[in-house]
Amino acid sequence: MNIGVLGAGQLGRMLALAGYPLANRFTFLDTTGHPSAGIGEVLIDTDRRHLDAFLAKVDLVTYEFEHLPVELVSAIEEVKPVYPSSEAIRVCQNRAGEKALFDRLGIPTPAYRLVESAAELEAAAHELGCPVVAKSVTEGYDGKGQAVLRDPSEAQEAWRSIGHPRLIVESFIDFVREVSIIAVRGRDGEVVFYPMAENVHVDGILRYSIAPMPDLDDSVQLTADGYIRALLDELDYVGVLTLELFQARDGSLLANEMAPRVHNSGHWSMDGAVTSQFENHLRAIQGLPLGDTRARMPTCMINVIGREGDPAAILAIADAHLHRYDKSERLGRKLGHVNLLAPTHAELLDKVRTCVALLPGAPAPRFSFE
Amino acid sequence: MNIGVLGAGQLGRMLALAGYPLANRFTFLDTTGHPSAGIGEVLIDTDRRHLDAFLAKVDLVTYEFEHLPVELVSAIEEVKPVYPSSEAIRVCQNRAGEKALFDRLGIPTPAYRLVESAAELEAAAHELGCPVVAKSVTEGYDGKGQAVLRDPSEAQEAWRSIGHPRLIVESFIDFVREVSIIAVRGRDGEVVFYPMAENVHVDGILRYSIAPMPDLDDSVQLTADGYIRALLDELDYVGVLTLELFQARDGSLLANEMAPRVHNSGHWSMDGAVTSQFENHLRAIQGLPLGDTRARMPTCMINVIGREGDPAAILAIADAHLHRYDKSERLGRKLGHVNLLAPTHAELLDKVRTCVALLPGAPAPRFSFE
Repeated sequence: MNIGVLGAGQLGRMLALAGYPLANRFTFLDTTGHPSAGIGEVLIDTDRRHLDAFLAKVDLVTYEFEHLPVELVSAIEEVKPVYPSSEAIRVCQNRAGEKALFDRLGIPTPAYRLVESAAELEAAAHELGCPVVAKSVTEGYDGKGQAVLRDPSEAQEAWRSIGHPRLIVESFIDFVREVSIIAVRGRDGEVVFYPMAENVHVDGILRYSIAPMPDLDDSVQLTADGYIRALLDELDYVGVLTLELFQARDGSLLANEMAPRVHNSGHWSMDGAVTSQFENHLRAIQGLPLGDTRARMPTCMINVIGREGDPAAILAIADAHLHRYDKSERLGRKLGHVNLLAPTHAELLDKVRTCVALLPGAPAPRFSFE
Repeated sequence: MNIGVLGAGQLGRMLALAGYPLANRFTFLDTTGHPSAGIGEVLIDTDRRHLDAFLAKVDLVTYEFEHLPVELVSAIEEVKPVYPSSEAIRVCQNRAGEKALFDRLGIPTPAYRLVESAAELEAAAHELGCPVVAKSVTEGYDGKGQAVLRDPSEAQEAWRSIGHPRLIVESFIDFVREVSIIAVRGRDGEVVFYPMAENVHVDGILRYSIAPMPDLDDSVQLTADGYIRALLDELDYVGVLTLELFQARDGSLLANEMAPRVHNSGHWSMDGAVTSQFENHLRAIQGLPLGDTRARMPTCMINVIGREGDPAAILAIADAHLHRYDKSERLGRKLGHVNLLAPTHAELLDKVRTCVALLPGAPAPRFSFE
């Protein structure tokens, strides 16, 4: 089975590493001119002249990146099976459509308004009560294209800084923590759920994910399972889907956004779960039985960003698992991650502190349950 | 770090899969014309004209196969670091030298004689007491180049069938089980040991390895640790070394043979240990700290030989991990393996039986502790 992957970054790389043991081969289609997968066959296609060659090589297509032209993915679907479908991409590319889907499926979200001018933005800020977050409805990756309004009078400036004709404005949630739920749906409709992770972002970039959480009520996991199952079934989805949520003081969950792919907040599963999100995505899209999603042990994923630190010192930590992406160092660039496992959360936090001290510029982690 | 691997089969493939997350790249030198690694860069070099190109690409060299010309490896050592050294290959290629090393280090072996004619073979069979096993001192892989003599009168026929000018003749040991110990020695002399595995061979081919063993006395593990440490230190060895042994009825161990590489009886460690033998080999040869060798859970490795069976049905077993080598089916060919994990040995044996039923032609396993 030759699997075609749209995109050729670290997610594709890790998909391939999970897929070789299933006897899969990989062909990547890179449209950026800067592939970093470093594995399999990479076709660089900045002018769309290699698409036919790519399609001729592969048995089915998946993607590591949802900011793809929907019409491109639809066109590919005419030729080869694509999992997840172009419909998942279409929904996830537009925050307005995504929110409408959440509303339709009864998945609670922060209160929001759609605005198309600075005046409408100011009115929405009044109505929702500041602070509010304004985001362009399209694109948006790692905190880009966003602004926080502390007062409605900042609407003009925010409108200009984002520079997009349609924005979504959301109540600023007084959340206890950011969490995510990752689930996998097979071709036959079977669904499995990973334990939820607590995610720590700094400046809009994920830094830490910890799973399972020591203080998560089973009912909250079941609620999240229900939300993501509704999305999976509604979209007749095949593969891994990620839903990011806020958990409020009363324990309730509000959906933030979803990603139709393997996700950074699921990298802990590579060492911490019986079956990784990457293997389960590949099992799903090939129609194979899904693997056990249980955690073997409390696990913390630490992103390595900007600078590598000292890999030897990281590897000296017991039950530390280093995953380097073989990229050159650059400010703000995700270069790899470390998975730390420990029998208890207390021991895990000790290891996290040890590891963070080895990563230049890594902010001190602060988890909600500490 | 670009790692050069002599040989391009499944062991090299699994080394590479373990090495990408360490930001290693791999170049394989295949001298057979039939590489199967299917990953990294493979140079096919049946005429030794690509050796310089290979050496120019790589930072250090290791191997997945010890039946290499010693002079080739010695020549490579003049240009690039080679781990383990050519000395390890030299010793492991000759059963007489290997036995002499065991003797010198006080590692017990079955009683043996070296013979250079059918008459000497017959005399040795008398002296040792039949049955005896006669093996050519060189080569020998998966039971080839061997004969069992039930009576000294069979010496002529055995001599002819092996067709080698120098044989080693060994007492046939009434062993309870075949076991192996795998250890890793770093560039700084640090040594770590894996839990010993019980190995089941059928017709000279490994079929099952189970680790840890449920009934292994700690003192036996410590004895094996001592034997392999003596070998590692004597050879100033760097990397993974495997020592296969017989365990006799009284619990004592007798060394059979060693392999200067990652080993099929260590494949269980890919899912069952904190750090796999492949990752630890790569850590060792790069001078990185060695990883924890502890088992997460009782694990059984089942080789997939000759025919693939039904991969989907295998993946439906809970905590089953399939490792396919992406080779075509052929009688007696190792095509992959399955690692099964379970919290108890009783549950593990149930899973083993389930899995074996899915593998056409797989012999029913019989472990010593059942």
